[in-house]
Amino acid sequence: MSAIRPVLVVAGVRAGGTGVATAAAFARKGYSLALISRGAEDLKALEEELKAAGNDATAFPVPSYSATSISSVFQSIHARYPSPQYAIRAALYNASHSIRKPFLDITLADFHAAQETIVEGSFAFAQEVIPIFKRNEIDVDTGKRGFIIFTGSTTSIRGNTTTSAAAPAKWGMRALSQSLAKEFGPYNIHVAHAVIDGVINTPFSRSRFHDPPNWVENEDIRLNAEDIAKAYVYLAEQPRSAWTWELDLRPAHEKW
Amino acid sequence: MSAIRPVLVVAGVRAGGTGVATAAAFARKGYSLALISRGAEDLKALEEELKAAGNDATAFPVPSYSATSISSVFQSIHARYPSPQYAIRAALYNASHSIRKPFLDITLADFHAAQETIVEGSFAFAQEVIPIFKRNEIDVDTGKRGFIIFTGSTTSIRGNTTTSAAAPAKWGMRALSQSLAKEFGPYNIHVAHAVIDGVINTPFSRSRFHDPPNWVENEDIRLNAEDIAKAYVYLAEQPRSAWTWELDLRPAHEKW
Amino acid sequence: MSAIRPVLVVAGVRAGGTGVATAAAFARKGYSLALISRGAEDLKALEEELKAAGNDATAFPVPSYSATSISSVFQSIHARYPSPQYAIRAALYNASHSIRKPFLDITLADFHAAQETIVEGSFAFAQEVIPIFKRNEIDVDTGKRGFIIFTGSTTSIRGNTTTSAAAPAKWGMRALSQSLAKEFGPYNIHVAHAVIDGVINTPFSRSRFHDPPNWVENEDIRLNAEDIAKAYVYLAEQPRSAWTWELDLRPAHEKW
Amino acid sequence: MSAIRPVLVVAGVRAGGTGVATAAAFARKGYSLALISRGAEDLKALEEELKAAGNDATAFPVPSYSATSISSVFQSIHARYPSPQYAIRAALYNASHSIRKPFLDITLADFHAAQETIVEGSFAFAQEVIPIFKRNEIDVDTGKRGFIIFTGSTTSIRGNTTTSAAAPAKWGMRALSQSLAKEFGPYNIHVAHAVIDGVINTPFSRSRFHDPPNWVENEDIRLNAEDIAKAYVYLAEQPRSAWTWELDLRPAHEKW
Repeated sequence: MSAIRPVLVVAGVRAGGTGVATAAAFARKGYSLALISRGAEDLKALEEELKAAGNDATAFPVPSYSATSISSVFQSIHARYPSPQYAIRAALYNASHSIRKPFLDITLADFHAAQETIVEGSFAFAQEVIPIFKRNEIDVDTGKRGFIIFTGSTTSIRGNTTTSAAAPAKWGMRALSQSLAKEFGPYNIHVAHAVIDGVINTPFSRSRFHDPPNWVENEDIRLNAEDIAKAYVYLAEQPRSAWTWELDLRPAHEKW
Repeated sequence: MSAIRPVLVVAGVRAGGTGVATAAAFARKGYSLALISRGAEDLKALEEELKAAGNDATAFPVPSYSATSISSVFQSIHARYPSPQYAIRAALYNASHSIRKPFLDITLADFHAAQETIVEGSFAFAQEVIPIFKRNEIDVDTGKRGFIIFTGSTTSIRGNTTTSAAAPAKWGMRALSQSLAKEFGPYNIHVAHAVIDGVINTPFSRSRFHDPPNWVENEDIRLNAEDIAKAYVYLAEQPRSAWTWELDLRPAHEKW
Repeated sequence: MSAIRPVLVVAGVRAGGTGVATAAAFARKGYSLALISRGAEDLKALEEELKAAGNDATAFPVPSYSATSISSVFQSIHARYPSPQYAIRAALYNASHSIRKPFLDITLADFHAAQETIVEGSFAFAQEVIPIFKRNEIDVDTGKRGFIIFTGSTTSIRGNTTTSAAAPAKWGMRALSQSLAKEFGPYNIHVAHAVIDGVINTPFSRSRFHDPPNWVENEDIRLNAEDIAKAYVYLAEQPRSAWTWELDLRPAHEKW
Repeated sequence: MSAIRPVLVVAGVRAGGTGVATAAAFARKGYSLALISRGAEDLKALEEELKAAGNDATAFPVPSYSATSISSVFQSIHARYPSPQYAIRAALYNASHSIRKPFLDITLADFHAAQETIVEGSFAFAQEVIPIFKRNEIDVDTGKRGFIIFTGSTTSIRGNTTTSAAAPAKWGMRALSQSLAKEFGPYNIHVAHAVIDGVINTPFSRSRFHDPPNWVENEDIRLNAEDIAKAYVYLAEQPRSAWTWELDLRPAHEKW
């Protein structure tokens, strides 16, 4: 892909999280970065951070992950990273919507928010990305026209007492990823799903977990976003004869 | 439950299908029937049919399975089957939205229709039913305040090449049912999910399947709605020490 | 099957357990009972108990569930319940081998004992039963030549820290049951698997569980063998258009 | 681990297969190789091949994968790669036993062969390897005392009509790997399982698959052992905050 610059599109970017770590990891592989997220200000700061590190990154703030927003933001991405100078070759759907509530406390708005961000968003995102991938050349090393990964969690595979809003959304996204993997593998488009089974060490989680006291330092008991990103890069580079649809990622000492 | 008449609420009723067969089967156990469905005319005909057979049945047509429709139709059900003369003790969410299309042919409207009918609808349905159940007495025989079952299918457990709209919805409903089963078992509310793995012999399917020629007669190769209904009655009657969350149902000769 | 007396063969019978409860339940449906178990004395006592209740039951003690033992005991069963007066039409493989140990404490003898009792035994049992079933007429009501069910547990679907001997055996038996269900459904032989997810109220468990104090009385928190037996009878009677391979059974209040 | 030479132990090595490809891949990372397999002559040839490529490799032929054989062969491995000059830090259980037969054609010998090679062998192998790992220092980069991976297949997750011998064994090994992963993660021992979902391009499979004619050349439709090996090296190198228990590997165009 010499002359054409590859682009990674990430939806769901938060300070210290999987999205930005994955962006940085792909940048080291020569990718330009299109960063979609809510919270324009924080997103701009992350763009600056990535640029300061010498990367080509652009913030694409969205008001929500509705299909309309996704569709509209891809117009901007295409304008900023036009073909044939650029080619979107990798995509990460990492947007989530944390909600843990007893079922009868879940409002319809809660439910819709989880559905929109996780299911509608990932569906709309894939509908933008896959037609682009279909037009790409097959990469010689990996046998891929493109790579798309969805970030799931324990909730993607287990319903539980407080997950009546989150689990339907997360299972829905997982089902989408499996359907897409089966439909588009024959087009040399690699679709993957990661089950993140544990808490990631981010500024947000650090503000909540104080127990045990060495939670931050102890890499055996929580995930590093950078280590998740390594897994995503590995998957992106898997050669055509041996692709993974799904893997789980958890800290060494996680109880599961 | 002597003096109080038990009511079964069914969402998703079609001629010859699981909904109406389940209604008839519960009627034989002494239940009054609240039938929710789209297609007011057909629904009215089914109400008449059930009444002609000596049952207490009422049609509650809805324009859609949106949360708003579900919420509104339950007002009508409560008016028709008021407490304390009646008690809703069983519920079946059987609404579905058949859609098999290549991913890139699925419109946002298609996607939303599947999501609304299957996930939003089942969520809203459960939000109406579970508070009612919580107020019921525990039935002495079964240890239940209420029983709710969701009708799933093969698509509920496997994504496939043409199920990028259907599978996210069906997996979502399955996740909801698992979350609810775990949350409300301790309240003696029994939540179940059935994986119907095969084609049901209905007027609709009879109009489409002609191969093999004895498809209709050969009970080894397609499901009877009445046999599914038997399974649902069985589950409703399971005693408190041994409840099933999920079972699969398929014809004897089904390939799976 | 008027003139021919149906026989249920149960492997794994213990006082107050699933095996004997299932035997009693099938006896009420007109079955003669062939009871295979280790512990000749206890087994004889159960035979007497079942006979005293008016049933036709015969004890077939085995030294182990090795293939050799299974093969040999079926010779005795055939001699006692000869064709064409009798026809083995139902079978339950309920033998288990409880072992919970840290991996490095598991001896090879432990491992083999679990494998032999659970995997080799169920394999040999099915190899005896299925050829018999193939020769049976198809029952008009159920569409079955025969019904075989395997008793699994939570360990059948989840490995855990102390199940390095039990889980391989239990998963193995579950795999066997799935393979058989797919191969012999087309022969109208119904193969099922039950996941018993909780503790059964038996003399043995009563001697171990004292907490909470009302454990025995509280049917919401442990299983009754009789209720499991009801599920097995239900499965045996499922009609050909809608058979279940697998269901889970757990107390209403079980945490899972 | 500077001065101490790491050793990879592989059980199940065949020309052109996953075992030898993994050995070669770990050798490139500085590992010495202990190769266990049946067929002393072929194994010796592979040893020569790996040595000719500049690797430190030793053949350890076994008559079978019985626990006795495994136990005995590890004595030889310890003698050849003694502590503290060497440390076994990685292990692959790759032995398999291909058997596809209708259930009633499976002999007890067939069944035992599958069980011994796949379940007993992997159990015994882990019982040798894990105590060694427990004595290792934790590797600074990966947070591991050791890494053990088991090679599974589609049969590890699905029983089918001709897998009544293979599936119980393969599910058994998968259950073992999950139990071990949960028990020994807290000891910083990484246990993984790979589901190889497709046919690997080996001399053996090349002799059987002629259809389509470009089967050998077309990397989209069959697996390369080298690509599986890459996945295993990747897993071995995963850092402690994000370990994978299970991933699937299949060709881009595989139907699943």
